[in-house]
Amino acid sequence: MGVVIPLEESKNKSASVKPLVDLTKADMERVNHLILSKAGSDVQMIPEVAEHLISSGGKRLRPMLTIASAALFGYKGDNHVKLATSVEFMHTATLLHDDVVDESDLRRGKSTARMIWGNQASVLVGDFLLGQAFRMMVEVGSLEALDVLSSAACVIAEGEVLQLSVAKNMETTEDDYLAVIRAKTAALFAAAAEVGPIVANASKADRNALKSYGTNLGLAFQLVDDVLDYGGKAADLGKNVGDDFREGKITLPVILSYRRGTEEERAFWRDAIETGNSDDANLEKAIGLITKYGALNDTIARAVHYGTIARDALAPLPDSPYKSALMEVIDFCIQRVS
Amino acid sequence: MGVVIPLEESKNKSASVKPLVDLTKADMERVNHLILSKAGSDVQMIPEVAEHLISSGGKRLRPMLTIASAALFGYKGDNHVKLATSVEFMHTATLLHDDVVDESDLRRGKSTARMIWGNQASVLVGDFLLGQAFRMMVEVGSLEALDVLSSAACVIAEGEVLQLSVAKNMETTEDDYLAVIRAKTAALFAAAAEVGPIVANASKADRNALKSYGTNLGLAFQLVDDVLDYGGKAADLGKNVGDDFREGKITLPVILSYRRGTEEERAFWRDAIETGNSDDANLEKAIGLITKYGALNDTIARAVHYGTIARDALAPLPDSPYKSALMEVIDFCIQRVS
Repeated sequence: MGVVIPLEESKNKSASVKPLVDLTKADMERVNHLILSKAGSDVQMIPEVAEHLISSGGKRLRPMLTIASAALFGYKGDNHVKLATSVEFMHTATLLHDDVVDESDLRRGKSTARMIWGNQASVLVGDFLLGQAFRMMVEVGSLEALDVLSSAACVIAEGEVLQLSVAKNMETTEDDYLAVIRAKTAALFAAAAEVGPIVANASKADRNALKSYGTNLGLAFQLVDDVLDYGGKAADLGKNVGDDFREGKITLPVILSYRRGTEEERAFWRDAIETGNSDDANLEKAIGLITKYGALNDTIARAVHYGTIARDALAPLPDSPYKSALMEVIDFCIQRVS
Repeated sequence: MGVVIPLEESKNKSASVKPLVDLTKADMERVNHLILSKAGSDVQMIPEVAEHLISSGGKRLRPMLTIASAALFGYKGDNHVKLATSVEFMHTATLLHDDVVDESDLRRGKSTARMIWGNQASVLVGDFLLGQAFRMMVEVGSLEALDVLSSAACVIAEGEVLQLSVAKNMETTEDDYLAVIRAKTAALFAAAAEVGPIVANASKADRNALKSYGTNLGLAFQLVDDVLDYGGKAADLGKNVGDDFREGKITLPVILSYRRGTEEERAFWRDAIETGNSDDANLEKAIGLITKYGALNDTIARAVHYGTIARDALAPLPDSPYKSALMEVIDFCIQRVS
């Protein structure tokens, strides 16, 4: 597209998800087995759709958070594996429903389930996976974990509805937008991290620390995701650059560019986002304005801000390989853009 | 449409839902309050959509089953009200998602939520209500009730997917069809009736009795519903006669007519249901064939069969007004067609 987006060099270019992956490897293999077995059904289409989505990859960041946050407190049982699988199923169900809501064609570079099996199967298999998630939580038998995860399910749905209602509305403020991503993304990160200390019978303070870590990591993660939608290459990302723009989705880069723009530029944004004139020429113009106002760098600066809060949430905990790995994931999430 | 459908006179024309309504009136008022309060959200669209569906009426049969089946065992607490509300929310969520899946325009004579607010809101508000249902179950704190209801959520979704896979397939057998309605309809009736004895700490035998009652009542209810789709008047029913036909849905009246038909008639059914030639003229012809082969009466005979099983499931329980009311509801459900 010919638009160069200047990103500042990150200080710690080497941050990686690898330590977290290595530490959780054995348990995540059990999670993967459980995912495959619980996505099974005599009803043929269910495992087909579920396996399509499951094999589409993704880093399984959310269930890794559950595994690591239980291990952080010395947990030795099996329940964290079930809860991690529940978390991944909640996430998968949300993706299936999101693709229907957003009318998306591609996810992580593959056709979405709704393009292959139709909206119908996506809605219903999502419902099935959500049901299986709750069954596994019930098997674990912790009412506290059930409370955290069922509350998250509500908040996520509320966040998605809120997103609908701010969609195509250029008067959306940064605070409105934060309320959306706090609900639709950060709530599941928070729940994933909080159920670890819950099954490990850790203290209320430890639960709160992990909940805060998850919330702020989730905010940083979503902010960076929204930057990538304007700044990456479709081939690298497995998503189409400009998807958010074409769908009239209001994200922080757009909010900042709009609020900092001239009257004429604001008219352009309203025409593009609210009226839907979002062809490739307008996408290029939008990226130009986003660059002009430094809106990607400033969105990343916000992500760094939340990353710092996540770091301070974990700070009081005793040093351990798990703690270090969880800390490093913060930088890793932010460095996806740089 | 000029097609007269001969239905045999029912023996007990006076069967009514009124005794059940009267007995559960006080608790159902509490359920209605809880429904309104738990459908509330700061996200404006959620209460709008939820109240649209809630005010659309329906008899609230499923939550009444929960209230009555708890009271049947002398339960005096509050938990049955929460579980009844959970059951109604699960049902409402299913309706919202069903309307998206079936692309329905009308439900109970009113525009469906998806026609007013779009598929997006229907999917997401359904998810929210399902989340709220689980939160209320968690508040009750009975892992047994959670197990029954979360399992039902999975089975219902499986049933809906199974229905998709048999849709437009005229080789579907009565057994295939039964598997669908056992999952998509009977499972929630069964769960609604079973959680009553669970919160009342009744015996395993009593739980099983109510589960069997709910299952078979649900089967009878769905069979009669499928008859109504070919035999009622849209104005009376609040649904369009022939909706199932136009959607290519395979129900028992169609299965029986197809299997009993001539080669030529079977070709008609395949053309109508599989190819989708389901205009008004073909609907009239379909109703003619259904009448010719007595398929509505025989579907009702199946409903009577399941009704009898439901009755025998309750038979060993001591006589009480609740038991009588639950018994009478069986006849009431079947007599909707006569």
